Amino acid sequence: MSKSITIFDTTLRDGTQGEGISLSADDKLKIAKKLDDLGVHYIEGGIPGSNMKDIEFFNRVKDLRLNAKITAFGSTRRKNSLAEQDDNLQRMLAAGVPAATLVGKSWDFHVHTALQTTLEENLAMIGDSIAFLKSKGLEVIFDAEHFFDGYKNNPEYAAAVMARAREAGADWLVMCDTNGGTLPHEIQDIVTSLTQRIPGAHFGIHTHNDCELAVANALSAIQAGARQVQGTINGYGERCGNANLCSIIPTLQLKMGYSCIPEESLPQLTNTARYVSEVANVNMPVNQPYVGSAAFAHKGGIHVSAILRDSRTYEHIAPELVGNKQRVLVSELAGQSNVLSKAQEMGLNLDPSSEQARKVIDKIKDLEHQGYQFEGADASLELLLREATGEMNELFTFESFKMLVEKSAGKPVVSEAFVKLKVGGETLYTAGEGNGPVNALDNALRKALLAHFPQLKDMHLSDYKVRVLDEKDQTAAKVRVLIESKDYSDTWSTVGMSTNVIEASWEALVDSMRYALLGQISPENTDLLDVGQRGLVNH
Amino acid sequence: MSKSITIFDTTLRDGTQGEGISLSADDKLKIAKKLDDLGVHYIEGGIPGSNMKDIEFFNRVKDLRLNAKITAFGSTRRKNSLAEQDDNLQRMLAAGVPAATLVGKSWDFHVHTALQTTLEENLAMIGDSIAFLKSKGLEVIFDAEHFFDGYKNNPEYAAAVMARAREAGADWLVMCDTNGGTLPHEIQDIVTSLTQRIPGAHFGIHTHNDCELAVANALSAIQAGARQVQGTINGYGERCGNANLCSIIPTLQLKMGYSCIPEESLPQLTNTARYVSEVANVNMPVNQPYVGSAAFAHKGGIHVSAILRDSRTYEHIAPELVGNKQRVLVSELAGQSNVLSKAQEMGLNLDPSSEQARKVIDKIKDLEHQGYQFEGADASLELLLREATGEMNELFTFESFKMLVEKSAGKPVVSEAFVKLKVGGETLYTAGEGNGPVNALDNALRKALLAHFPQLKDMHLSDYKVRVLDEKDQTAAKVRVLIESKDYSDTWSTVGMSTNVIEASWEALVDSMRYALLGQISPENTDLLDVGQRGLVNH
Repeated sequence: MSKSITIFDTTLRDGTQGEGISLSADDKLKIAKKLDDLGVHYIEGGIPGSNMKDIEFFNRVKDLRLNAKITAFGSTRRKNSLAEQDDNLQRMLAAGVPAATLVGKSWDFHVHTALQTTLEENLAMIGDSIAFLKSKGLEVIFDAEHFFDGYKNNPEYAAAVMARAREAGADWLVMCDTNGGTLPHEIQDIVTSLTQRIPGAHFGIHTHNDCELAVANALSAIQAGARQVQGTINGYGERCGNANLCSIIPTLQLKMGYSCIPEESLPQLTNTARYVSEVANVNMPVNQPYVGSAAFAHKGGIHVSAILRDSRTYEHIAPELVGNKQRVLVSELAGQSNVLSKAQEMGLNLDPSSEQARKVIDKIKDLEHQGYQFEGADASLELLLREATGEMNELFTFESFKMLVEKSAGKPVVSEAFVKLKVGGETLYTAGEGNGPVNALDNALRKALLAHFPQLKDMHLSDYKVRVLDEKDQTAAKVRVLIESKDYSDTWSTVGMSTNVIEASWEALVDSMRYALLGQISPENTDLLDVGQRGLVNH
Repeated sequence: MSKSITIFDTTLRDGTQGEGISLSADDKLKIAKKLDDLGVHYIEGGIPGSNMKDIEFFNRVKDLRLNAKITAFGSTRRKNSLAEQDDNLQRMLAAGVPAATLVGKSWDFHVHTALQTTLEENLAMIGDSIAFLKSKGLEVIFDAEHFFDGYKNNPEYAAAVMARAREAGADWLVMCDTNGGTLPHEIQDIVTSLTQRIPGAHFGIHTHNDCELAVANALSAIQAGARQVQGTINGYGERCGNANLCSIIPTLQLKMGYSCIPEESLPQLTNTARYVSEVANVNMPVNQPYVGSAAFAHKGGIHVSAILRDSRTYEHIAPELVGNKQRVLVSELAGQSNVLSKAQEMGLNLDPSSEQARKVIDKIKDLEHQGYQFEGADASLELLLREATGEMNELFTFESFKMLVEKSAGKPVVSEAFVKLKVGGETLYTAGEGNGPVNALDNALRKALLAHFPQLKDMHLSDYKVRVLDEKDQTAAKVRVLIESKDYSDTWSTVGMSTNVIEASWEALVDSMRYALLGQISPENTDLLDVGQRGLVNH
């Protein structure tokens, strides 16, 4: 049997049904381009029958001239009506896409309860709708909703649904574990059974993660004969999410001998995952398999000693294969190895046996104990190590800041900041306004620094995270701020800590500029449009 | 074969090797008590050989008189030395625990590269160490590190390691997929093979999530004969984490006919997961299977219509079985069903066909489009719906606030807030100080309100999240603040949005008090120690 697997990406449709995910048409176009670069075969763009944003997407995506086939998603015709006159189906045609995904009921319980119609009418709805779209020249992917629950309950009917879809011309018969409750061995049995009942058809699998088995279920289906996998980047989707393509693709390709995307594209996986999470504006869990920032991050002292000798001791694959990288974490579990490895990574002269090394390791552990987290703030860690090795050149000295926010009912809020620094022998006192306190401080700080350091003009704040640390009294609790800064080619993160969110933000802001002034930053790539090229790999 | 599965929880040991997780001895004791209430069989508390916090834990945990067996983790004796003289082993004894988990190498590659010793010496290290601890009356769980990689590479040696452990008296032989790269069918084959080679032994499985298969691998091992599962709450652990017990336990117990924890304890699962994430101070992904706040959250209009008719249409189990609950999400994908269902849930009179309903649905969609997210802020949503239905009683009116933060080099930061409100006909102008701007505003606001509304005294801010929304210019971007407030029995969340983080925080703070003043809150449970009882189920 063929070892080629078709990758069907539904990030832009099923993915948007996850809590906290909402994509504009622009967002979808950016993501579609990225998915196409990765090499997925189908990109399901949305539901033209119910979403104006999606109609806009389908219109504009044609101009991108993507290799992937764009598909529109929709239901079979309404009961007791004609396919030709069905609004949904008409809108799917109007979307002008080469392929359509039709979802139809395959669980008798749903036919009775949700559709409130007969088993026979449901078969007709499926047959008619597929035949109609096929007659208009579209490729049709039939998604049999709740297929596994349906097959367990009434295997004859579920199989009849698939048979009808095939007769009507469906190009793919996709078995969906819509409620996410099926187990891998059940998937294996049912897929094997169906492929025997309908030999020669092209089968697909669409799983959900309600038991944390979406990936395992998809792999099980493929081993039993399915050749299309439907999933999403980062596993976004309704409830617990869809099958995570970022886990499935590398597992199939690197461990199971299948081919999904071009081999040379696999290293784009991590970058793609992060890009999509940025556009979707959701945090990517650090521990996400393959592509998470902690996927190859080693913390325990024993692990670190071993991987510094040979990465295969604690890594199941080389991170570069998926575009990720190994990281050594510095924490209170850290041995000397972790800190020294970091110093070496940064090109600093830290003699492992020196008093200097011992002191900075103690200082780091102490700061971590106070709540600093250098794991996500490599630039602040580097500044600390440079202070320890004497390789730090302070180009400005902080004197004071004042920050004022005023708001009256019915009037816009006003934020002003006043910053006093010393550069060389000169005292600079600047005032800045902004849309918020951090913006005002940033503006005042830049005014003070830019005159002397014009290289700072291309850097900007690209992400700002706040975390409150202690539980007992939350408005008097320690606050940790992580700032991510970017310029054309680099990304760097700094941390600040205080019970005062403004002071913590100030600390992280100042560190971001001290780091920029180290001379590590050089203006290079002027492509402002593609976030993906702007140093995400460094994060 | 028995259907009882032994649950071995290593949240407090392997779990702490995950990035961003750091637990004090106090944290560990709180969590241990919670795990014991849930009914796990073993609680691995830490590594007495290398961690002072853990020695403190082992001393103090005895006073809790838990049902679960506490175990200490450590390595086999060092090469070319005597077990009796090994520091690690001595500290494991000194921990005074009834059971010890000994980790030993079972992959010849590791014996040569990491330990730099001979295969025979490694076997002796394992045999000696186990025999030594057994002679001191301990139960011994042997963790064969990298077992599956070891077995694939050199099955005779890996099996010999297990045989030696058994001969020396190990009570459990645990196969660890330490690098997380093994596949479910390989697990099945290898576990089956080993159980045939060493019949009658008690086998365990310890998996990692580097391919997103930790849960599937654990289930596969159990189906092949393993009877102990090692994992962590919420899947915390090194790199991509350990096997997630919150996914394994309900799957084994509700779907596969095994028994792990007492049936009446299973509904505590969600509360346990959230409690542990709070103590560990890490966000729980909303889409976590079974226990995530979105695990049974329905967003698409079609899904919502169907589940309002019958939950089984889109839920694989009843959420209450694991202590979770169904939620209907309001978003731009929402149909009328979502909003109306929420209104009904809140006990409000919103006539579905009314102009009122149409207006508030439009308003919600518009606010969501601006960036408000009511999904995580039920209290703000309720206030909005109440405004629409005229069931909102505003007890105070906002006039103005000023907020000032000052910092000079070498001096502590100062935050002051000045708040002007009207209550009844009376203007109240208060000043507050704080450890930060939100704390200062909170204090000034409370001073103004408490005189008239003493019922606010028991509420406090329990979580504070900030998210920056637009990418282009991050310090002038929209900021969304989510505040979680608590009193003795309830938890409620409110949202604020602005380009100004102070104004956004103010909005969320004011909403939290408006909500508290609705009279929904009643002081009940005065047990301050157990966070778990304080309304977490409501979140």
